[in-house]
Amino acid sequence: MKTYLLLTLLITFLFLGAVNKYGDNTPKLQNVSKETQECIDCHAYYSPGIVNDWLSSLHSKTTPLEALSKPKLQRRVSNENIPSELQNYVVGCFECHSRNVENHKDSFEHNGYKINVIVSPNDCKTCHLEEANQYSESKKSYAYDNLMANPVYHLLVNTIDGVKEVKDGKITSREPSDETLMETCLGCHGTKIEVKGMRTVQLKDGTIDVPDLKNWPNQGVGRINPDGSRGACTSCHPRHSFSIEIARKPYTCAQCHLEPDVPAWDVYKESKHGNIFFSKETEWNYTNVPWVVGKDFKAPTCAVCHNSLIVSEDGEVKAERSHDFGARLWVRLFGLTYSHPQPKSGNTSIIKNADGLPLPTTFTGKLASEFLIDKAEMDKRKSVMMNVCESCHSTSWTENHFKKMDVTLKETDEMTLAATKLMVSAWDNKLEDNKNPFDEIIEKHWVKQWLFYGNSIKYSSAMTGAPDYSSFKLGWWELSENLQEMKELIEAKENR
Amino acid sequence: MKTYLLLTLLITFLFLGAVNKYGDNTPKLQNVSKETQECIDCHAYYSPGIVNDWLSSLHSKTTPLEALSKPKLQRRVSNENIPSELQNYVVGCFECHSRNVENHKDSFEHNGYKINVIVSPNDCKTCHLEEANQYSESKKSYAYDNLMANPVYHLLVNTIDGVKEVKDGKITSREPSDETLMETCLGCHGTKIEVKGMRTVQLKDGTIDVPDLKNWPNQGVGRINPDGSRGACTSCHPRHSFSIEIARKPYTCAQCHLEPDVPAWDVYKESKHGNIFFSKETEWNYTNVPWVVGKDFKAPTCAVCHNSLIVSEDGEVKAERSHDFGARLWVRLFGLTYSHPQPKSGNTSIIKNADGLPLPTTFTGKLASEFLIDKAEMDKRKSVMMNVCESCHSTSWTENHFKKMDVTLKETDEMTLAATKLMVSAWDNKLEDNKNPFDEIIEKHWVKQWLFYGNSIKYSSAMTGAPDYSSFKLGWWELSENLQEMKELIEAKENR
Amino acid sequence: MKTYLLLTLLITFLFLGAVNKYGDNTPKLQNVSKETQECIDCHAYYSPGIVNDWLSSLHSKTTPLEALSKPKLQRRVSNENIPSELQNYVVGCFECHSRNVENHKDSFEHNGYKINVIVSPNDCKTCHLEEANQYSESKKSYAYDNLMANPVYHLLVNTIDGVKEVKDGKITSREPSDETLMETCLGCHGTKIEVKGMRTVQLKDGTIDVPDLKNWPNQGVGRINPDGSRGACTSCHPRHSFSIEIARKPYTCAQCHLEPDVPAWDVYKESKHGNIFFSKETEWNYTNVPWVVGKDFKAPTCAVCHNSLIVSEDGEVKAERSHDFGARLWVRLFGLTYSHPQPKSGNTSIIKNADGLPLPTTFTGKLASEFLIDKAEMDKRKSVMMNVCESCHSTSWTENHFKKMDVTLKETDEMTLAATKLMVSAWDNKLEDNKNPFDEIIEKHWVKQWLFYGNSIKYSSAMTGAPDYSSFKLGWWELSENLQEMKELIEAKENR
Repeated sequence: MKTYLLLTLLITFLFLGAVNKYGDNTPKLQNVSKETQECIDCHAYYSPGIVNDWLSSLHSKTTPLEALSKPKLQRRVSNENIPSELQNYVVGCFECHSRNVENHKDSFEHNGYKINVIVSPNDCKTCHLEEANQYSESKKSYAYDNLMANPVYHLLVNTIDGVKEVKDGKITSREPSDETLMETCLGCHGTKIEVKGMRTVQLKDGTIDVPDLKNWPNQGVGRINPDGSRGACTSCHPRHSFSIEIARKPYTCAQCHLEPDVPAWDVYKESKHGNIFFSKETEWNYTNVPWVVGKDFKAPTCAVCHNSLIVSEDGEVKAERSHDFGARLWVRLFGLTYSHPQPKSGNTSIIKNADGLPLPTTFTGKLASEFLIDKAEMDKRKSVMMNVCESCHSTSWTENHFKKMDVTLKETDEMTLAATKLMVSAWDNKLEDNKNPFDEIIEKHWVKQWLFYGNSIKYSSAMTGAPDYSSFKLGWWELSENLQEMKELIEAKENR
Repeated sequence: MKTYLLLTLLITFLFLGAVNKYGDNTPKLQNVSKETQECIDCHAYYSPGIVNDWLSSLHSKTTPLEALSKPKLQRRVSNENIPSELQNYVVGCFECHSRNVENHKDSFEHNGYKINVIVSPNDCKTCHLEEANQYSESKKSYAYDNLMANPVYHLLVNTIDGVKEVKDGKITSREPSDETLMETCLGCHGTKIEVKGMRTVQLKDGTIDVPDLKNWPNQGVGRINPDGSRGACTSCHPRHSFSIEIARKPYTCAQCHLEPDVPAWDVYKESKHGNIFFSKETEWNYTNVPWVVGKDFKAPTCAVCHNSLIVSEDGEVKAERSHDFGARLWVRLFGLTYSHPQPKSGNTSIIKNADGLPLPTTFTGKLASEFLIDKAEMDKRKSVMMNVCESCHSTSWTENHFKKMDVTLKETDEMTLAATKLMVSAWDNKLEDNKNPFDEIIEKHWVKQWLFYGNSIKYSSAMTGAPDYSSFKLGWWELSENLQEMKELIEAKENR
Repeated sequence: MKTYLLLTLLITFLFLGAVNKYGDNTPKLQNVSKETQECIDCHAYYSPGIVNDWLSSLHSKTTPLEALSKPKLQRRVSNENIPSELQNYVVGCFECHSRNVENHKDSFEHNGYKINVIVSPNDCKTCHLEEANQYSESKKSYAYDNLMANPVYHLLVNTIDGVKEVKDGKITSREPSDETLMETCLGCHGTKIEVKGMRTVQLKDGTIDVPDLKNWPNQGVGRINPDGSRGACTSCHPRHSFSIEIARKPYTCAQCHLEPDVPAWDVYKESKHGNIFFSKETEWNYTNVPWVVGKDFKAPTCAVCHNSLIVSEDGEVKAERSHDFGARLWVRLFGLTYSHPQPKSGNTSIIKNADGLPLPTTFTGKLASEFLIDKAEMDKRKSVMMNVCESCHSTSWTENHFKKMDVTLKETDEMTLAATKLMVSAWDNKLEDNKNPFDEIIEKHWVKQWLFYGNSIKYSSAMTGAPDYSSFKLGWWELSENLQEMKELIEAKENR
């Protein structure tokens, strides 16, 4: 008899394990605060999708006390001093939306409670202290200012996004609208959310008054929140599941890191790593903490190389977790207008180059070195990344890979320099006007040379390759053809 | 003892449930008509793929009588008066291919039976009455005529698809061939299938005579069938599984709704909704009827917003099912050449604008209002869509979203108007000839302005965004650059 | 009691089956050679990802003796005379890396063993004899020479990939670097790997000496290996799982067969076949040998049509396995510069056309027939492919499909001819210089006509369609617009 009992229990155990893996979302609500329960009672009717999504989250199933009780490497919370009044309730609606109301311009009275519309990184910091701190100094966190407080980039934004009018054959441009900014550049970079006052909205059975927010909805990485903080954790951990699985899958990064300017996703899809991911995707474990290389996954997703805590099966830490997504990067591929060592500060609008412009390189490629990390820091970061690569590749494989990348950065930068020379000659010969370097046709070709084609090749090189991409699709074909087109335009304009 | 028994049975039950979820396709054929059994006996040898695909379908497992016995919300059939001779057999080869033979020019004698090659919406209507009726009045159903019976669009088709010849430096164009039309425009819009007679085909062990069909194979949404009906249910429910799962997944819509002209799929892939779908895709339920928001799925696919019957977990209907895919749409994003209220009739070739052309807007944006739905109807449809959004988003979130979209429609239409002015100035100055507004180089830039770039931004705006897409990939970058290119072309041509 | 026992055992059995399906990778190492065990002991520490990946492979679980004992149709090895000293060990590190060391310039002493860095097709041939032999005569195997030993294509490569410099308004080009070739053309075609000597690499706790390889890492299909063999089995069966599943999924082919020049993947994604694959992907069986149409899969992946051993459920062979990926192809879609019958030899650099150039067609489309397969061979191959199609489609469906494709090939070739005529007129009028037919702006438009737009439409036609792709995305729109642009460029240059 005992055998059957044990066997049956074993099967039950294994089986329940299998079921849980794919999520048994039956709401077995335990340790829910009475405030959160009140939210749920009403919102299960008004917005069932939100409630169900939250029910699928770890937040709905774990109290901070339980989360803190795990061995350090397995923890998903990093503040050892979570306020005691929060420790024994699961992380529900009220726990998050009632944080720091005194700082929140978007806080309002809602059925007897003071809550905030937007939960900001500063609120998440209550439990996820280290992550919020790392993030707050990253380039992502400064993504709004890095674009909009930099007069050069701001001019590029305005040139692209402003509505144009044609009068007497002349094209003029208006300032871009908030709405268009919100769904173009600031869709990824983040908007500056403002509270305009309160407004009344009509529900299916009555009305309520809620804060009237400008430049919202938005989940850009550098969003300026109504509490003054920067960023949106929901960029990568979507509401209300706040899933580590989603954040670790490349589809998340694919929301913004796209061709033609930042084609990380496009390159990944065509790489060997991508092939293995897509082929074996459903067999891997995306929720394990720490994340075990070779066991939980067999080829990297974006998060593996850039920020997750990676260990080997025997517990050796291959890479520490970081929510500063540049922490393992030494060179900045992204040509603005040439590749360069990573900036020291996440706030790049403070950079001044030798031309006096807030750019990391001059027009001809001279580095604004004072604002960029030095050789020692570069070497340190490179060795962190190489440690990840070497979990699956030999040292000589890895070294050769990065040597090849160095050549690519040099050559694509030379191709940008060639385009720059053609543009300068057009300016010198009064064919175009350098007042705005982004609005005329030869200038636009120059922008495409570094922003689209140069960058595409650089990303392809760094990420072990998308050969057809580097060749014919936004690669060397375009880089060479674009230069030839610039020359043709110059000759045509000279002959008018 | 009893505990073990119950536990074991419970496990068995749960486990078998899990197995069934992933489809046990063992052919347990029951209630098959003798005619269908005869088809299968032969076709299991000649075309095993077809037979196996059908075996995976609900059609092979359910009789109409069983289908009708379900509670109304759970039904997949809508005709309460299915012919009694069909009610007790599963829906097999003969049941579908022998419908209404008298109307079918493609009917023929095949081993003693009179059958049709093509099963049309009019045949599917036998059981799926409401769906076929809704579909038959939709724009999709008229997709062939909407393109080919509209002289303006037909000219665009011919200009693109005709083989060009070069003689003495001049380019002339032939009429497009049926074959090229079939695999370009009419691949999605549908061909007009004609029966040319009979032909003899060689099988591996003999010959048979079958109808000789012209413009076939094709599964375009507005296909003109040999029985005179319009449409192809197999556009979205592929033969012979006729799967609701496939139709509800976005890959189906991705067959046609693609960049650069209708980039719904491209936008979805890069949106937050798409991210969540791709990350959690394998955990959702795509076959449940009705479809429960928050439980069966946690982010929308195309079908969720546009046509499925959506309920909340407590059974409240969030949106009724409709096979008129425009039923929840108030504004037509698709700029032809400007956005406009949805047309009243699915047949858009009947529209006449103030210029006398069969277009919903004039050249400068004036609406052909008489043929378009009014404000009340627009508001009604918008409220249906908002009801879907509000299952997961607050009312103020949703309102802000659509306000933003309104600004985008206005601005992209202004960018089209700017391009129109440049083209008109080129015509006025005899740089190009307005006889065919699609064939010269400035004209082609004008087409790209609304058909590619304007539309891309509009879709991105409506679908909660693909920011990089709206910015650099067929977005504002192109919209602005294209205008500048038009200006350059004009100046170059003026100076010749 | 017995009932419970049986039931419990049944459940256990079923359940373990389910678990195994998703891979229980617990290393139950059996029959590992002592040499391989020694490799693992060390590499589990230095490169755990490699070891874990291999543990997930069939190689780690099967001895050649076991593999050979299967019925012939189920076998994955084709050499009946595998060396006896290998037959009783699983296929581990040492078994593969110690093959034929005498031929390997990359062999070296490593902890007491003589091993090779690169395992070549000639090594895999030890067990996979037929596959290696078939591959070695295919176009893929000759992909390096077919590009680099053909002076015309080599000139195209150099024109695209060489770094350009601008001096006095003139553009000059350097020879491409090995690094850029490695990550563009040769990323897919394969590099020529050379051994430069030995080098010392720094590990985390010491140094080792390893061969210093040039043009490596690379997994291109025509890689020239240090043992003189051609190809890399890891192009499609990635190290170290060597998975048949991955090779059978389309993501593998998607590493290289991409828009704009060879858009098989792009077309597949938008086709009905692709829709069904993506919708049902996780339910199919990708490891069964032989592969059963209708049961293991319900729509084709690349491998189904092009090289896998396909049978019907009753065991009838629908198509034989071939690792010559052109074995089922009669016409070569790929326009160089026009479509043509498949070449007789995988080595296409031996072709000479009537102009004396190593191209399968002349400038105006005349075939180099002597080097191309004849009508009888074309018919034979076509019937093999049609046999695959007819597993799921009727004969008349299939015939109509290929008739349509023939028209498309003819028409797109006519569109290339039109572009050729314009380019020749530009040469005749000294607007451009025909010395290098790839470097000037009208010439580049000519290249795009056949290499990008013509090819895209041809692939779309052959693969049952991606209608929007053939129309607006690298299709007829571009084909027609490009011609118009060529005409404009000619007129502009004539008027300078």
